Amino acid sequence: MVEKTTFSLVDELLRPYDFANDKDGISGKRLAERLDEISKIGRTAENGSNRPGFSLAEKQAKNLVVKWMIEVGLDVHEDGAGNIFGRLSGKAKEDLTILSGSHIDTVPNGGHFDGVLGVLSALEVVEAWKEVGYQPNKSFEVAIFTDEEGSRFNSGFGGSEAMMGKVNTDEKLQLTDIEGKSFSEVLASVGLSVEGYEKASRSLDDIEMFVELHIEQGKRLEKENLPCGIVTGIAGPSWISLTFSGEAGHAGNTPMNDRRDALVAASEFVNRLSQLPQQINDSAVATVGKINVHPNGVNVIPGEVNLYVDIRDIYEETRDKLIDQVIDLSEEIAQKHSVQVKHEEKTRVTPIPIAQDNQRLLAETFESMGLQPYYLPSGAGHDAMIIGEAIPISMIFVRSKGGISHNPAEWTDLVDAVVGARVLKSFIERLQ
Amino acid sequence: MVEKTTFSLVDELLRPYDFANDKDGISGKRLAERLDEISKIGRTAENGSNRPGFSLAEKQAKNLVVKWMIEVGLDVHEDGAGNIFGRLSGKAKEDLTILSGSHIDTVPNGGHFDGVLGVLSALEVVEAWKEVGYQPNKSFEVAIFTDEEGSRFNSGFGGSEAMMGKVNTDEKLQLTDIEGKSFSEVLASVGLSVEGYEKASRSLDDIEMFVELHIEQGKRLEKENLPCGIVTGIAGPSWISLTFSGEAGHAGNTPMNDRRDALVAASEFVNRLSQLPQQINDSAVATVGKINVHPNGVNVIPGEVNLYVDIRDIYEETRDKLIDQVIDLSEEIAQKHSVQVKHEEKTRVTPIPIAQDNQRLLAETFESMGLQPYYLPSGAGHDAMIIGEAIPISMIFVRSKGGISHNPAEWTDLVDAVVGARVLKSFIERLQ
Repeated sequence: MVEKTTFSLVDELLRPYDFANDKDGISGKRLAERLDEISKIGRTAENGSNRPGFSLAEKQAKNLVVKWMIEVGLDVHEDGAGNIFGRLSGKAKEDLTILSGSHIDTVPNGGHFDGVLGVLSALEVVEAWKEVGYQPNKSFEVAIFTDEEGSRFNSGFGGSEAMMGKVNTDEKLQLTDIEGKSFSEVLASVGLSVEGYEKASRSLDDIEMFVELHIEQGKRLEKENLPCGIVTGIAGPSWISLTFSGEAGHAGNTPMNDRRDALVAASEFVNRLSQLPQQINDSAVATVGKINVHPNGVNVIPGEVNLYVDIRDIYEETRDKLIDQVIDLSEEIAQKHSVQVKHEEKTRVTPIPIAQDNQRLLAETFESMGLQPYYLPSGAGHDAMIIGEAIPISMIFVRSKGGISHNPAEWTDLVDAVVGARVLKSFIERLQ
Repeated sequence: MVEKTTFSLVDELLRPYDFANDKDGISGKRLAERLDEISKIGRTAENGSNRPGFSLAEKQAKNLVVKWMIEVGLDVHEDGAGNIFGRLSGKAKEDLTILSGSHIDTVPNGGHFDGVLGVLSALEVVEAWKEVGYQPNKSFEVAIFTDEEGSRFNSGFGGSEAMMGKVNTDEKLQLTDIEGKSFSEVLASVGLSVEGYEKASRSLDDIEMFVELHIEQGKRLEKENLPCGIVTGIAGPSWISLTFSGEAGHAGNTPMNDRRDALVAASEFVNRLSQLPQQINDSAVATVGKINVHPNGVNVIPGEVNLYVDIRDIYEETRDKLIDQVIDLSEEIAQKHSVQVKHEEKTRVTPIPIAQDNQRLLAETFESMGLQPYYLPSGAGHDAMIIGEAIPISMIFVRSKGGISHNPAEWTDLVDAVVGARVLKSFIERLQ
């Protein structure tokens, strides 16, 4: 691996950027410089970033944003989960707050846009307002949620869950990271405590909406040649483990018509599974990404195959219908091949559809800016998914190059990022 | 794992045995006792045996058989590959020799019949002849071939290849075992040398036939309820590595109609492959036993799938036709799914059909003993496969319980073993 010491994120962002795109007080230069500064925290040899949740790198990145928050005049508050809120009080007497932001932690050797762009875009809105002396009616808070990726403990959304009072402390206390450090030890290493973490729960009465801007991490916008899109909902992933059990045997000495080959059955399942989601819903997807064959010997008929099915849709009803069909399909195929199949549900996260009214309001914002309103689901989970269980949410997706994410090659052109920040600003003004 | 210290192979064999089956001088008791004595060499905690090729355990087992050979009056010769030949000279002036035997090495934690039964049955023929003072016209040799299983260096048939002068010394010298010992070091550890190994090649002019008795390692005889069968040929395995390359992506953010999922393509291949052999030949088989998916993450669309296809038939023409069809199928499916596929031939062993005349002679032997002649192919390789490239061969299969092999649970009832030895004796007498 060659260490590209000459890599400069700000240069890469600004080189092709046309400053004519700086509009409505949003500054491409400031955004690029800030993305660059944060990207250096936890920078890896492959030009990625490594800022796991609850790490010193994540804390250092938060501190940098806090500095900018203070400079632009926000009141900064950190809760017991390390979530950061930079508040701009509204003009209205009625105490209503609009929250916008995302996370600043990364997966190991992650990219420079996932999460960070949402935080900096929300901050950019405040920067733009400050330039023209605009004060919103409703209070506005720029939020940074801790540990969205969950790469430390294989358990994400730690910050947003804490804010929403959804913490299961007993579960958390059993977690250990890859170095064997307990959850409480890790919290202590960044100045937090389990007691504080439990108390991070915030009253939600005053929060009118959470708006999250995020890179798409898919290729829909790229295919449509659009900078931004309107998220219709966040697909809750469901993971089902399926184990097909047949009979192992010698690949040479067992005639074809006397086999109970677990892999032949599993293969018919994987192949037919790929046809199911489209029969249910355009936004539904089903994937077998992980498969393990036993004994996995070249000359041994597979006796057992374990695979995981990842099933998602933005609507709980159709997602759950798809789950049922997937299980039915596995049983039908097992019977056909005279093998057994067992299923085990490993996770089932509630999908969060985004209210039609909020989508429409965002579409009006797009149209007012001369942008085509393009609707797309989010297949990946986001802090908005956790928050959306109790509070109205909206989500703006910004185009990702090649859909690549969780990778140093993750990329969003600055012009798209600037358009995204402008959409965010205009939308929040529309909410006043 | 519980160590069954009370396990006694001889007791297990003799308990259900009816001595009325002892006929033609073949002794069930002697056969059972000898199987038991050999099984103790390299005995594992799970009651299996561990006698890799070129190990001290294999040598110790050979030494034990050599002792029995000498006791029964055979002239014993060991060649430079450690192959053992116990010779009984024939009456005839013409120097023609019939060879019979097998191997005595095992896979790790293997069973007690694979190989050993063929060696002891050939020896049992001589024991039976001695009792009645029978001397064959043609010379007869009981053979033990070194390292048939190849578990030491993942490269089998080391002994029979050496005898046939088929040794590629350069290739052998590059081998290392799991402990990192070179081929020459391992040879030295059992008193052999590379020079001697190269010189093991034997003149084949005097050898009329090699007859191998072996357990079936399949379930055909069990299904037919027959003790023995006539092998029609030895399927030469062909291994083809196929790599399907699509595009990895987020399982949530990539719509179903925008995927190039390498596993969906590979799955259609595995499923349709299972239908191909029967269209070509009853004895043809094709198996995908080993499959590796990259990156193999639950929420990642597989970008690459590598799998091995094991293709066998006893006829080279139909086997090769099947290979072509397998490759065609992979290409057709790759195109359909917009993925790439690459194939690489890893091995292609010549199948050895057994001459019709020899099969007929063996069938006559079966009939003369009141046994039903049942024909079946050998899917697994045997020393007879190597020897059969230059010398006429015959093979007798003996029923295997449940087809289980390469496992401590490998089992053949003593009554079947005795019938097998009687068939072998009668067949060799018929060759005089």
